[in-house]
Amino acid sequence: MYVYGRNVLKEIINAKYPVKNIYFTDSKKTDKTLNDLIELAKKHNYSFSFAPDKVLQRMVNISKHQGVVIDIGKEFKYAEEDILDNLKENATIIILDQLQDPHNFGAIIRSAVASNSDLIVIPKDNSVEITPTVIKVSVGLAFKIPILKVTNLSRFIDVIKKRGFWVYGADMSYNIYYEMDLTGNVALVMGNEGNGIREKVKSRCDALISIPMANNVDSLNVSVSAGILLFEIFKQKSR
Amino acid sequence: MYVYGRNVLKEIINAKYPVKNIYFTDSKKTDKTLNDLIELAKKHNYSFSFAPDKVLQRMVNISKHQGVVIDIGKEFKYAEEDILDNLKENATIIILDQLQDPHNFGAIIRSAVASNSDLIVIPKDNSVEITPTVIKVSVGLAFKIPILKVTNLSRFIDVIKKRGFWVYGADMSYNIYYEMDLTGNVALVMGNEGNGIREKVKSRCDALISIPMANNVDSLNVSVSAGILLFEIFKQKSR
Repeated sequence: MYVYGRNVLKEIINAKYPVKNIYFTDSKKTDKTLNDLIELAKKHNYSFSFAPDKVLQRMVNISKHQGVVIDIGKEFKYAEEDILDNLKENATIIILDQLQDPHNFGAIIRSAVASNSDLIVIPKDNSVEITPTVIKVSVGLAFKIPILKVTNLSRFIDVIKKRGFWVYGADMSYNIYYEMDLTGNVALVMGNEGNGIREKVKSRCDALISIPMANNVDSLNVSVSAGILLFEIFKQKSR
Repeated sequence: MYVYGRNVLKEIINAKYPVKNIYFTDSKKTDKTLNDLIELAKKHNYSFSFAPDKVLQRMVNISKHQGVVIDIGKEFKYAEEDILDNLKENATIIILDQLQDPHNFGAIIRSAVASNSDLIVIPKDNSVEITPTVIKVSVGLAFKIPILKVTNLSRFIDVIKKRGFWVYGADMSYNIYYEMDLTGNVALVMGNEGNGIREKVKSRCDALISIPMANNVDSLNVSVSAGILLFEIFKQKSR
């Protein structure tokens, strides 16, 4: 998979994420940021080469590659299920139930890292996956948080409940998000753009939480809702 | 301008927004929601006709028109500057300084209406405008809140400050958003996706407010930041 962008490369190197090769533009019109990145790749023993802008553009099918394309190999490296053994105390897990839009996924990854969350979980089927667009929208932060794919979300929720997580589903309810205690080990379930959380997943949640809204609006963009709830969790845990 | 979608038409009719014509699909495979919309349009004396799906698709260049395309005339009806005389007590104004992305604009409009905000302001130049995509992403809520275009944002900020508004710019600072008093007449300035708020606009703000972030992340998607700040304002004003 070819991913692109300067922030993306920076996060890949920060995460010591293994890649096949880095392609930098061979254009003479480089700048300090790009030269710094080349030095950084060299210092960390990453394999890299130079190629014309046109070649980079063909690799990622986009002209805004910022002079950097990275071949990260066949597939993005998702987390292994034993990740649960390695979470910190008072962890935050975000579960995305059949999210569809790569821009929403990328924005949620960015909010997850910024709000000190520990793990993102998506189902294997009927879900957006990690793509070059998702990685770009996440400004490379997809490399900074483990992302786990599970076969069965309901089963996964049962597993983390046994491990002491409280599972909150974002849905219409009488529980106002800022009146709930969201400290401790917490999992937040966000639903799909059109239909919200599936019934069978919702029934597994310990409680539903809502963002009160005016003017009869009944939902927000899912990446906005996720951001509001994640930063409430972060705020409560920071106290 | 042709806009599309069922939520969009519903909000147009709710807002009594004048349109040139509504085109419904002539497909026999209609459903209750669509029939209800046709009845609603009829009841409110909107001019409408029927056309093949292919024609609708050609009008909006998209296949997901949901059987509804609306000709809203040459241009979207922006608010007039005398809107300031008609705002409620303790109003909330959102100022978007050279926002570029239609998805961000649409998501912010949705959050603005849901958080009971009163007015959205954009500059005439170098800014995303109201387009069919923006309207669709706003789930039609662009018709539910006045949107004002101004020639000079700095001058506009001076005007509202004289009218008693406190103007907060979203930017890196030591002022944590939830520790600030955001009640009363409040304006929130959000910057552009790449560069934030322009210096000359920033210098007009009464204070800068920040969302504290972990892991050295220095910004969120702008529609997510706007959502977090707008719902903090809404929460404080609801108490």
